[in-house]
Amino acid sequence: MNVDGLAWLPGGHAVLSGPVLALAERVESRLAKLAAQWQAEELRVPPVVETADLERLDWLRSFPHLATLATTFDDPEAVAEGGARALAPPAAVLTPAACFHVYGHLRGQVVTRPRHLTVQATCFRREAEYRPLERQWTFTMREVVAVGAGTDVAAFLAEARTAAEGLAADLGLDVAWAAATDPFFRPPSNPRYLMQLADPTKHELRLADGLAIASVNLHHDHFGRAFAVSLAGGAPATTGCLAFGLERWLAAVIRHHGLDPDGWPQ
Amino acid sequence: MNVDGLAWLPGGHAVLSGPVLALAERVESRLAKLAAQWQAEELRVPPVVETADLERLDWLRSFPHLATLATTFDDPEAVAEGGARALAPPAAVLTPAACFHVYGHLRGQVVTRPRHLTVQATCFRREAEYRPLERQWTFTMREVVAVGAGTDVAAFLAEARTAAEGLAADLGLDVAWAAATDPFFRPPSNPRYLMQLADPTKHELRLADGLAIASVNLHHDHFGRAFAVSLAGGAPATTGCLAFGLERWLAAVIRHHGLDPDGWPQ
Repeated sequence: MNVDGLAWLPGGHAVLSGPVLALAERVESRLAKLAAQWQAEELRVPPVVETADLERLDWLRSFPHLATLATTFDDPEAVAEGGARALAPPAAVLTPAACFHVYGHLRGQVVTRPRHLTVQATCFRREAEYRPLERQWTFTMREVVAVGAGTDVAAFLAEARTAAEGLAADLGLDVAWAAATDPFFRPPSNPRYLMQLADPTKHELRLADGLAIASVNLHHDHFGRAFAVSLAGGAPATTGCLAFGLERWLAAVIRHHGLDPDGWPQ
Repeated sequence: MNVDGLAWLPGGHAVLSGPVLALAERVESRLAKLAAQWQAEELRVPPVVETADLERLDWLRSFPHLATLATTFDDPEAVAEGGARALAPPAAVLTPAACFHVYGHLRGQVVTRPRHLTVQATCFRREAEYRPLERQWTFTMREVVAVGAGTDVAAFLAEARTAAEGLAADLGLDVAWAAATDPFFRPPSNPRYLMQLADPTKHELRLADGLAIASVNLHHDHFGRAFAVSLAGGAPATTGCLAFGLERWLAAVIRHHGLDPDGWPQ
């Protein structure tokens, strides 16, 4: 994709500048406005998730192929001398999805009214191959998370669908919703995958060729239990999220409106 | 530091919300305005630097103790089955300083007029211990980089000092400049450290207790040579940078003005 302001690093990373960066900032500002519809509280989060929090979710065993780990040199002296570069055990996991930080932030809390939080984070997802803006090792995710009773979260997810469709329509994009599953490792052998097949909890907003640019996800009490976030009566809270892959929205705009920045929505 | 909107993760990472996040956004907006004084071109960069680019600078041998590496599981299947979690060789280095991406971005270019670029990036620096906002494993760096002839960069660095002092004064901070050296591994055995001692190329803007909140750095032709960025006559370009540690500015404001957000500069 030869477009002014997009530089591609072969490891699966983009550097944005000029017109593409300006487009990214316009889309981000629309996403922030969208999150404000629920008066969502903003968090700014680090690029790593503590390993213990992902273990609590059995995330590493479900998605080991997607994980990027943060580690250090076991023996800096050897590296300084040009010798072996053995690695220490991983100290953290590079953030796989923005919303993990939200559940950690609410850890141990009692939610007495429906709460909405929002976060934009750099995320890491290891893939077999990468394409600029469409499938990157490092990318940007904006999420809005709802926490409350099941009915609160169901209402949020319905509003979230409408909001995401509305943004796609404003940008002139052709999209459709489809039931989806999370990208489990060896899906058929994972009971959580089979449950998702039987009772879809993830729906993706997709371009005509199948590229997902947003998703709505119902987590039931998966995160509420794991992080001891509970309702006033003591039951674990339900959570759900609306997630946007920022770079994919840029790809969608460029595909639809062409390579000339003058043709992009202002 | 018990302040509304600062949550500390024990691995050395902060989650910001509420008043602290609002303060961060105000400081960021001042830094962006400061960069605009040179009409600096903005880049948005990934959280990793390709290993080959750091090798080109001999960075891993000079700073092996600071490095955070990005890696993956060597055998995802074993991890899925709850077995060994061996790591693959590192695929990249988590960004140690924002400006490395700028030199990579200019790779192979001929600079026919002084250029200024700016970038805000999440950076990783492994330390022996961490303190909220003051010394974090993951933190935010804003840099302005000048590229050109030696005299262009010298002029920029003089302006940069004045600009950084001005911002500190606006925020009511007590600061002073001090000559400094980069945090080399085993400094006395590194010729580059000895050169920096003899001819200081780094000056830090420090609070009374020595905490550095900004620095100006003259790189001579170190990056120009490494990335083949040259002047019209063919000589390698000189570079220099002005760097701000965002979280440290928040720490400085809180130390100086107190824990009550109502007392912070608006």
